[in-house]
Amino acid sequence: MDSARNQSMKMQRFKAIVTYRGTAFDGWQKQLRTSTVQDSIEKVLKEIFGTQTRISASGRTDAGVHGIGQVIAFDAMTRLSPAVLQKAMNAKLGQDIKIKRVVCVRASFHPRYAAASKTYRYLIADFPSPFLVESAWYIPHQLDMKKMRVAARTLVGKHDFSAFCSAGSSAKNFVRDIYSITLRRERFTFDPALKVLAIEITGSGFLYRMARSIVGTLVNVGLGKIEPNDVAAILASRNRARAGSTAPPWALYLKHVSYRAKSEGKQ
Amino acid sequence: MDSARNQSMKMQRFKAIVTYRGTAFDGWQKQLRTSTVQDSIEKVLKEIFGTQTRISASGRTDAGVHGIGQVIAFDAMTRLSPAVLQKAMNAKLGQDIKIKRVVCVRASFHPRYAAASKTYRYLIADFPSPFLVESAWYIPHQLDMKKMRVAARTLVGKHDFSAFCSAGSSAKNFVRDIYSITLRRERFTFDPALKVLAIEITGSGFLYRMARSIVGTLVNVGLGKIEPNDVAAILASRNRARAGSTAPPWALYLKHVSYRAKSEGKQ
Repeated sequence: MDSARNQSMKMQRFKAIVTYRGTAFDGWQKQLRTSTVQDSIEKVLKEIFGTQTRISASGRTDAGVHGIGQVIAFDAMTRLSPAVLQKAMNAKLGQDIKIKRVVCVRASFHPRYAAASKTYRYLIADFPSPFLVESAWYIPHQLDMKKMRVAARTLVGKHDFSAFCSAGSSAKNFVRDIYSITLRRERFTFDPALKVLAIEITGSGFLYRMARSIVGTLVNVGLGKIEPNDVAAILASRNRARAGSTAPPWALYLKHVSYRAKSEGKQ
Repeated sequence: MDSARNQSMKMQRFKAIVTYRGTAFDGWQKQLRTSTVQDSIEKVLKEIFGTQTRISASGRTDAGVHGIGQVIAFDAMTRLSPAVLQKAMNAKLGQDIKIKRVVCVRASFHPRYAAASKTYRYLIADFPSPFLVESAWYIPHQLDMKKMRVAARTLVGKHDFSAFCSAGSSAKNFVRDIYSITLRRERFTFDPALKVLAIEITGSGFLYRMARSIVGTLVNVGLGKIEPNDVAAILASRNRARAGSTAPPWALYLKHVSYRAKSEGKQ
């Protein structure tokens, strides 16, 4: 390698948007003898840059949870443009992880600490389509969307979400701000005669399994097992045992992480 | 079994709408040592009725081609209602085939001979999303939709489609009537930030690989490899070698088969 040119290169921080099929991996974070999303990306970066390159993410996703807008960052000494880097990564990554976009960001950017909000998307289907296996929660009952929307409104706002946090959380502060919860029936791309219910939750942050716990509770409301009014009491109880069952992971998609413009701005 | 009640049962013809993930099977029709859609359904019907039950279909789909509105018919001596029969079949079928609907039809109904038209749907993506593997054709180039629509209009109508029929066809008459070809960019359910191009083709009937041959030609137009005007000449040539390459099977969906009302009407 030309050492003179090499010396002129500076360390650059890159931000990348990552999509992955969660059911193809054993979760996000590096573990012994399992295939994880983080592992697969770091392996490819090592091949491209020739040196061990650690990535940081907006947060881990649980085993089975999909990514359509996960955000990662990493540092590299390279002359590759973001577009070329994206192509190189996608050429080496398997079909279950792809990079949607790469941009240069300032060296202080951190995908977790700089995150302003996150949006999760959850899919529910009332028909067991072969094209929805491991990608939507099949519920063979009619859900009362009107009641679910009333319950959802109770959860929007700044609350202590202890009741919607699974055991195993390392959180000390359980207050999170939920900005919006939307429910929408959408035409299914692979079979437009079918509709899927898409629940999207945007918030300042999410406790351990909080998104799936919210969906589980909304589904219980939709099924008539609990009333919309009960949700305020569950929230107030701060008691994990009170909330509905946790919805399955393989119907949850980390859709988007938003950042304040100045946190990303090129240095 | 109560033989008196048994005697009161009459043979009934059922029509069923079937959906299947084509990539999970070796095509539609029974073959030695391979798993086919027909095979899987007949196995389940034998379990339910206790006797070998042959099914007829609106047509075979090639290996890899998906079904979202395939139509089958079969005869059975049973007291099971269509709704109960659907549930029983879905409980026994694997996750890659499901029955969307079962109805009683007149004994003369045949899903192939009574078909008035068929609609195929084809999906094309410009990003290699993990959620589109084996379900959309990834084309990493921009397609000129305007030109593709002009070319599509040339194909609509009653024509000799010899140029769009693959070798191996047993057809003697190559004239088919294409009623419509639509191109639409749609939000992708699993990742709404992405769009997929859905091409839907409705016609009186389709020659061997004709839908995929039409899509292949339209894509060549979209890529600028041929001009919309060339399509009329290809059609007129009746020469297989002139049409574009055949588009891959795992992005094609048999969407709908329509019948004249009286052909289905309960006897």
